[in-house]
Amino acid sequence: MLLLVLMKEERFFYVPNATDVDRLPQEEAAHATRVLRLKEGDSIFLIDGEGGIHQAVVTIATNKQCQYKITNTTTLPQSENRIHIAIAPTKMMERMEWMAEKATEIGIDEISFLEGQFSERRKMRVDRIEKTVVSAMKQSRKAWMPAINDMIPVKQFIDTPREGRKFICHCHEEIPRTSLQQKLEEVQSSMFNVQCSTANGQSFTVLIGPEGDFSIEEVEYALKHGYESVSLGDFRLRTETAALVALMTIRLKVKG
Amino acid sequence: MLLLVLMKEERFFYVPNATDVDRLPQEEAAHATRVLRLKEGDSIFLIDGEGGIHQAVVTIATNKQCQYKITNTTTLPQSENRIHIAIAPTKMMERMEWMAEKATEIGIDEISFLEGQFSERRKMRVDRIEKTVVSAMKQSRKAWMPAINDMIPVKQFIDTPREGRKFICHCHEEIPRTSLQQKLEEVQSSMFNVQCSTANGQSFTVLIGPEGDFSIEEVEYALKHGYESVSLGDFRLRTETAALVALMTIRLKVKG
Repeated sequence: MLLLVLMKEERFFYVPNATDVDRLPQEEAAHATRVLRLKEGDSIFLIDGEGGIHQAVVTIATNKQCQYKITNTTTLPQSENRIHIAIAPTKMMERMEWMAEKATEIGIDEISFLEGQFSERRKMRVDRIEKTVVSAMKQSRKAWMPAINDMIPVKQFIDTPREGRKFICHCHEEIPRTSLQQKLEEVQSSMFNVQCSTANGQSFTVLIGPEGDFSIEEVEYALKHGYESVSLGDFRLRTETAALVALMTIRLKVKG
Repeated sequence: MLLLVLMKEERFFYVPNATDVDRLPQEEAAHATRVLRLKEGDSIFLIDGEGGIHQAVVTIATNKQCQYKITNTTTLPQSENRIHIAIAPTKMMERMEWMAEKATEIGIDEISFLEGQFSERRKMRVDRIEKTVVSAMKQSRKAWMPAINDMIPVKQFIDTPREGRKFICHCHEEIPRTSLQQKLEEVQSSMFNVQCSTANGQSFTVLIGPEGDFSIEEVEYALKHGYESVSLGDFRLRTETAALVALMTIRLKVKG
């Protein structure tokens, strides 16, 4: 993997199904040949988003296309624990792009967008988030592309069955909440595991509300459907920061 | 504190020495009277950055000034553990502003800027960072203003004596590193503390390098001066993300 670290970020390309095709997608090809001016014989790396990082050599480079031949493939395992953050997007789109970038760096498996009762943003350019995620994935050398889902209403998201532990973060003081950290420690403690880790291979879903929070009705709906009521500590956090804090808390408290 | 939570963010003003003066600073006054159109008798909140949150009433509001009378004062204690992040700023200034905003939300006590051997940015508009921090402080209702220090060379920072534990984060594989998380757990474990907390009242200093990392010489200089060599896990993180991950790791692993 040392070579991977040494390779410049710009030489990484995202190519879904990299082994089934023999050329870079149009946009990546334009960047490779026109901006980076790659030529036949140059080394590149292909990330397929499904665990594969492929070393390849450019075989044909024209203004319009960039063909390659894979010379070596490294397959990286998916993280043992699966973390899915479902968030009601902020008014400012760039805060969501920032969140997606950072979440990808830190390690996330799935991001969904929610339309809540108090949502300020009811339309979402998921393609922009995907672009950010692809760029962060290349930058941080991730082999797995997080799944990015279209926006759906909160209740529809809750209605969909999901494995593992499910949390809803909110600020309603009239509904009892436990800190997410404490919730994760409870499991740990009950397992008498002093290394502060819970079992591997778990799934976690975390709901993060809009700037105006979830409505009480939405929180109660979630609680009826198996979600646990949590806070993120004494911090008063912006929506996008809350998502990151929740993600980091799970990553740090649960090994794998 | 409920009232604090209910108050709109825009009604919070940062007024250092709020009890010694009787009017808002010029810029805050302009915002209060021209943008928010506050009038005599309106309620406002003053954050003095040194633990005090003061409820006040506007007594005089003109185009140029906004005088107040404090009616109630709440004093919040400083966090028991002190966290100081010293970071070599990124080329893109907005990434540093973003880091300062998020660090303030999550809870930081001091931010310093470093000029390293491989730094891409050698000048720093600390006033812009201060502005960001003030705004985040109001937004997240923090009573304490983090200290923001001017940029100094890495070695000069290291030469300055500092209390508590000191860490340097870097990516040099030839220099042994332990994950910051593990370093903090070691203490915890040696204290037989199953709640995953170390003692309160500690100080932590964390050095974060530039995009091109610290030089080996800089790392070795730090190690000679009592810094511990750490990594931030298997993540490959951008500079500004590294600062946040280090901060969150300490906040989550050390209570207080």
